[in-house]
Amino acid sequence: MNIHNLVRELREPGKSKIVLLVADGLGGLPMEAGGKTELETAATPNLDAAARDGITGLSIPVLPGITPGSGPGHLGLFGYDPLEYRIGRGILEALGINFPVGSSDVAIRGNFCTLGTDGKISDRRAGRPTNEKNKAAVERLRTIRVPGVELFVEPVKEHRFVLVIRGEGLGDGVNDTDPQAVGVVPLKAEGKDAAGTKTAEVVNKFVAEATKVLAPEAPVNGVTLRGFATYPKIAKFEEVYGLKAAAIAVYPMYKGLARLVGMDILDPGVTLQGQIDTMTKVWKDYDFFFMHYKYTDSTGEDGNFPAKVQMIEKLDEVVPAIRALKPDVFIVTGDHSTPSKMKSHSWHPVPTLLVSDVCRTDEVTHFNERSCLRGGLGQFQAMHLMLLAMANAGRLGKYGA
Amino acid sequence: MNIHNLVRELREPGKSKIVLLVADGLGGLPMEAGGKTELETAATPNLDAAARDGITGLSIPVLPGITPGSGPGHLGLFGYDPLEYRIGRGILEALGINFPVGSSDVAIRGNFCTLGTDGKISDRRAGRPTNEKNKAAVERLRTIRVPGVELFVEPVKEHRFVLVIRGEGLGDGVNDTDPQAVGVVPLKAEGKDAAGTKTAEVVNKFVAEATKVLAPEAPVNGVTLRGFATYPKIAKFEEVYGLKAAAIAVYPMYKGLARLVGMDILDPGVTLQGQIDTMTKVWKDYDFFFMHYKYTDSTGEDGNFPAKVQMIEKLDEVVPAIRALKPDVFIVTGDHSTPSKMKSHSWHPVPTLLVSDVCRTDEVTHFNERSCLRGGLGQFQAMHLMLLAMANAGRLGKYGA
Repeated sequence: MNIHNLVRELREPGKSKIVLLVADGLGGLPMEAGGKTELETAATPNLDAAARDGITGLSIPVLPGITPGSGPGHLGLFGYDPLEYRIGRGILEALGINFPVGSSDVAIRGNFCTLGTDGKISDRRAGRPTNEKNKAAVERLRTIRVPGVELFVEPVKEHRFVLVIRGEGLGDGVNDTDPQAVGVVPLKAEGKDAAGTKTAEVVNKFVAEATKVLAPEAPVNGVTLRGFATYPKIAKFEEVYGLKAAAIAVYPMYKGLARLVGMDILDPGVTLQGQIDTMTKVWKDYDFFFMHYKYTDSTGEDGNFPAKVQMIEKLDEVVPAIRALKPDVFIVTGDHSTPSKMKSHSWHPVPTLLVSDVCRTDEVTHFNERSCLRGGLGQFQAMHLMLLAMANAGRLGKYGA
Repeated sequence: MNIHNLVRELREPGKSKIVLLVADGLGGLPMEAGGKTELETAATPNLDAAARDGITGLSIPVLPGITPGSGPGHLGLFGYDPLEYRIGRGILEALGINFPVGSSDVAIRGNFCTLGTDGKISDRRAGRPTNEKNKAAVERLRTIRVPGVELFVEPVKEHRFVLVIRGEGLGDGVNDTDPQAVGVVPLKAEGKDAAGTKTAEVVNKFVAEATKVLAPEAPVNGVTLRGFATYPKIAKFEEVYGLKAAAIAVYPMYKGLARLVGMDILDPGVTLQGQIDTMTKVWKDYDFFFMHYKYTDSTGEDGNFPAKVQMIEKLDEVVPAIRALKPDVFIVTGDHSTPSKMKSHSWHPVPTLLVSDVCRTDEVTHFNERSCLRGGLGQFQAMHLMLLAMANAGRLGKYGA
């Protein structure tokens, strides 16, 4: 049975409030055999207190051994089966720069390249232009018009930009025009179906115009496009759970993922304190608060073990302020692990804690990988966490009589 | 989503090597309440060291409470959903005698029986003939020809043989001709569809001829057939995982199961040392090594607790030789439990260990049922083990961006 249908059937109205604090890439590894993980190394008195008050476990983001990107990692935590809902590359790029993708959009990742006089690609990244040069080239692309559709071109950085085509009847069944090689001309876009063909026609016109308008910008004088993606058909969070949800995130990608499921996107500035202040300010207005903390992931990606430890400790410091708001359900987890040792996302299950009045506390008194292994939530699939959140919030009725 | 498609999408090339050591029927039970299992009784310093260096858990072969045969047990370990891929009885019989079943074959388990002058079965096992008598009868069956197909008849033992029909358009939708009773005539084969009907026609001709040619061999003068099975449509291991795989097994059944998924079948002789020598010799040539050890199962099936303990200890002795090859991922598990107390396969989860550089070691220092219960792999489905193997081998990329 589809879990969302089950929730729609069983959910009950309530006044209870749920906080989902996502420390990106939270889980880790020891740097050497016999050592401690980042979380085991960090002094986390407040997270430990929450673990003591609550129930703990390890979240499996997708399946054992499967390392998720940010998209599937967060969808799982929001209660969407990450193997069922896939978010295309183009959409993620657009989300990542905070572009408000709509339901009739096709989003595409664009690369500036250098074309020779023969039209062949001589540099797939156009000499990695500065961000200023990128913006200048994007401004030129913005002058392009294709009848019947709206075009949006947004800079990302260096050679990367996002193209969004808005119009009726567009599809994402289109090949990448990036041949992934130099010494050849960019590929023509071709549709795999009627909707894809409509997109391909727009794209080919756009690319032809791009070559003209970019000429003065050489070596940034061509474009390749890939990752064609329509807005995913995805149920809205509030429609499924009956929770009015606020996203309190700093980075565009996570705002974008929250917007994708229909959460309200608040603007907390760029500090943890700003996030806490925002949550406090809107506490009365929402049922569900998704707070995202990036730095446990970015330090892990950097392979900087001491920095990740420090970022965990910084997060720990704001836990009392969140708990002081008295959420009925307080959850701390991550969308995946990012061990400093691996300098990348990984598949390792993620330490998770949940505090509520009815959570059946376990004997775990420290919040880390090793302790959570003995926790009462066991090892569970991330996409089931929202069921636990709803149940602990008193918002899920009995199934069957 | 189909797991194999996910693996095909995410897998990355590599030079890492994976060893999957399967101790058949590894898990056990204490003989009496409060006692120790076979694995808990055995002295296993080398497996314990591997458990200490690695991560442990318990593998659920199919589903809780489901006892697998060798086929589903191994398919799960190879990463095939044992509830999706079913291998017919006839195919397993053929694999068990090392017959190279092909994709246009129907394999059938045959029993010799004794027919009275009225054509009715008087002994369903033909007085359990000696293996010599079996072979003589098989030789007579081999003289039978049916136009349009090739027939292969192979002795198994006592009253059992295998019939393989090779030809185009054959199906396995055919009823057993064995009425499972005496005092009645064998049933006519009837097809349940066009392909089954073609097989049934061949079979009825074969059975009629068999009665003629076997007459001099009375009481081995009739045959019944059951377990009609075509070669299963099953993806090849290398095609799914991108791993060049070698099977280092002594017993035909396990060679056969490995051949079914396309592994190379090596001939290590009949000793553990022969298996180690073979693995060492071909170490450079393969990415994945499936090594099968039978005696933990056969001693369990015999209900011989001390012998199973001894066989576990014998296996433990060769673990250092395998680890000396420095596999990137070293896994020890079983295809199911075979408790001496039950003298049979069982559903009990199977102790499992995995050693790699990035395996997130747990606190388990002994390799047995009780210890592995506290392991970092938790209780997991056997068919997910290959995902973990691939991830730990650095051969699975990120899912989604």
